[in-house]
Amino acid sequence: MESEGKNNAKKEKIGTQPYKGVRDFYPEDQTLLNYILATERDVCRRFGYEEYHASILEPAELYRGKGADNEEIINEQTYTFMDRGGREVTLRPEMTPTVARMLAARRRDLGFPLRLFSTPNLFRYEATQRGRLREHWQLNVDLFGSDSLAADAEIISIAHALFMAFGASQSDFVIKLGSRSYLNALAAELGLSEENTRAMFALLDRKDKMPQEKFEADMEAIGVPLGKISADNPPEDVAAVLTLLSESGIDNAVFDPSIVRGFAYYTGVVFEVYDTHPENKRALCGGGRYDNLTKLFDDERVPAVGFGLGDVTVGHFLEVRGLIPPYLPSTRVYLAVPSEVHVATVQALAHELRQQGVTVAIDFGEKKLSDQIRQASKHKIPYLIVVGDTEAQTGTFVVRNLATGSDTTLKREQLAPFFTTL
Amino acid sequence: MESEGKNNAKKEKIGTQPYKGVRDFYPEDQTLLNYILATERDVCRRFGYEEYHASILEPAELYRGKGADNEEIINEQTYTFMDRGGREVTLRPEMTPTVARMLAARRRDLGFPLRLFSTPNLFRYEATQRGRLREHWQLNVDLFGSDSLAADAEIISIAHALFMAFGASQSDFVIKLGSRSYLNALAAELGLSEENTRAMFALLDRKDKMPQEKFEADMEAIGVPLGKISADNPPEDVAAVLTLLSESGIDNAVFDPSIVRGFAYYTGVVFEVYDTHPENKRALCGGGRYDNLTKLFDDERVPAVGFGLGDVTVGHFLEVRGLIPPYLPSTRVYLAVPSEVHVATVQALAHELRQQGVTVAIDFGEKKLSDQIRQASKHKIPYLIVVGDTEAQTGTFVVRNLATGSDTTLKREQLAPFFTTL
Repeated sequence: MESEGKNNAKKEKIGTQPYKGVRDFYPEDQTLLNYILATERDVCRRFGYEEYHASILEPAELYRGKGADNEEIINEQTYTFMDRGGREVTLRPEMTPTVARMLAARRRDLGFPLRLFSTPNLFRYEATQRGRLREHWQLNVDLFGSDSLAADAEIISIAHALFMAFGASQSDFVIKLGSRSYLNALAAELGLSEENTRAMFALLDRKDKMPQEKFEADMEAIGVPLGKISADNPPEDVAAVLTLLSESGIDNAVFDPSIVRGFAYYTGVVFEVYDTHPENKRALCGGGRYDNLTKLFDDERVPAVGFGLGDVTVGHFLEVRGLIPPYLPSTRVYLAVPSEVHVATVQALAHELRQQGVTVAIDFGEKKLSDQIRQASKHKIPYLIVVGDTEAQTGTFVVRNLATGSDTTLKREQLAPFFTTL
Repeated sequence: MESEGKNNAKKEKIGTQPYKGVRDFYPEDQTLLNYILATERDVCRRFGYEEYHASILEPAELYRGKGADNEEIINEQTYTFMDRGGREVTLRPEMTPTVARMLAARRRDLGFPLRLFSTPNLFRYEATQRGRLREHWQLNVDLFGSDSLAADAEIISIAHALFMAFGASQSDFVIKLGSRSYLNALAAELGLSEENTRAMFALLDRKDKMPQEKFEADMEAIGVPLGKISADNPPEDVAAVLTLLSESGIDNAVFDPSIVRGFAYYTGVVFEVYDTHPENKRALCGGGRYDNLTKLFDDERVPAVGFGLGDVTVGHFLEVRGLIPPYLPSTRVYLAVPSEVHVATVQALAHELRQQGVTVAIDFGEKKLSDQIRQASKHKIPYLIVVGDTEAQTGTFVVRNLATGSDTTLKREQLAPFFTTL
């Protein structure tokens, strides 16, 4: 950590910055994160999903052997270290292997279809220059035990419902569906080698980042004839899911053959949600069907479909759309006192209000009244009451709205209802 | 990780157990953790505390230099490793250094008194044989910027309110207060060396674990005369805090001279909460005043008082007292279908109910009806509705209570109110 020049005079002081690439959450930051996570939990629960969780510490072997795509991730992009007992530990870079592990451990006890969600923090050791963080919170939603395309439609509906719950309208985003099963069948039909199949996936993934002619030429070169992959002709599975989505009133879903998803484990319909805002044109989240992941643990196949959505991505989307709710602290009212002798009085009133569900902070009278009021404003607490001898004796209190400066005079018994019915 | 014998036949499979000493949270476990954390958040907010958070990754230097007590902890009891950029990183073993760091970073912008809480997961690399875990969740509550003993009383009141909110009565626990300032003054008065002052703290800490005669003899040996430390005569600061607590209706707080708290950083009143249950007679939580911690970052003193409470400890307390709420999933109702052709119908009803705030899981009809109902029961979902052609056409539905087997017949528009007013 960089030392801070001004403090080096006499003695080396400790730096106050967080570790590189991670964030401190002061109350305003935490309030936004809580809003994002609470909205996500609420939507998942409406769809009948139950919350699970696990430690960020996982055996490193959990991330190996999922295919060549992940070798680089495990070797160069994770926090992996040996613990003092000689165990290789990884700070989880994604949640899917964890939930697959938990599922395999209790397959007999869990009922299917099984609906699960979690909001884990995930860690990637990556270069931070592009604003990519080393830790973020990612909603993970998964449905296990169903081969029905209605399961795929449900997972995509949840992604849709999330953005609507954040205050977006359907024109703010578009859901693009692709089909891994179709591409795999196509590769088989064309007799593509594994290498060329991977090359086809990679080309589709970069389709929008290259000229159309180059895309077509490169596809022809690896043995995929022109017109074999066209946005006008959705594969059967994608078409069926689009119909189910449309029946749920979802009008912003389309087929896009370039959606393939990088991970090796997807097996069926895959999707990504894109922001339609010109300043934020990128994938907001994505997922799809992955029916083979639990085979890592034993030989039983469990069909699965799911997606992930990161808090940083949601934060950017809300910011661009002006959808971040204004900050309001949990604390509704600040009780100030003329002097320290009023502590017992103010403590008693605070106790009364708290019993009735009002969130109350009190001052201990160590500073003068004007300073106390300034502190309440600094914390953005909306209401202030000064509790002195007169107020305690008459049982009449003046409630000041610190934003507008307007006063409301209330009897003691009217205070709690005033705050709880706001 | 231990390999699992039965799966080794053909190919090495990955183990399904979590990393040693940490827990998986399946929905039932997560529901209990959520209950504990939500209760803690609610109590803290009633007292005017705002939530903050930080990454579990901290520069290792944050935990060094707090005094010899912590050398062992940082060297042998933390997860500390070098990252690929040559930075020494520690998975936080406690939250107080983090909040002190955050405070020092923005001292000018934060108003005082400042009330903060967090529910971080903390990591200790320790032997797991005694059921001690390597990761737990610990509520941390801190009040910064006040020298008033009313601040000490408030922090202790929050600990008290927490146990009451969990359903305990005052006879279930006792709050024991000690005074580090009194002991420091006593050491000075007696002219004790630093070594003997430490020895006095250590003896007091172990007082209840040794015969009274040995305690007295050992105290005399290091220069503390008999009767200098007595439970009958609380120091001034403890007495004042006890009076404030009593004025708040807290009757289960006492002075106990053996309460010293191990950490080097405490400076004033310290306290621990003890379970009075004969099977769980140990400290449930503890804390106190620590006015010098922010001096690690610069030369400005910020008075501080706070405490911590771990989720495992709370879990044990609730278990011993029979206070764990019965598990109920978030999902209120399961919609079963006679066959796969009813998917669009059931999807439409689910959509309607969700719009009105009901949490609904649906079946896709891949298994027969009796199996679907068995799955709903396995998930402990309380209500079931079978959605077939008759129900869709007549608009009349039978709601089955899966626990009692009783049925209620309702019109479509009566369904949502039935579930939301339960």
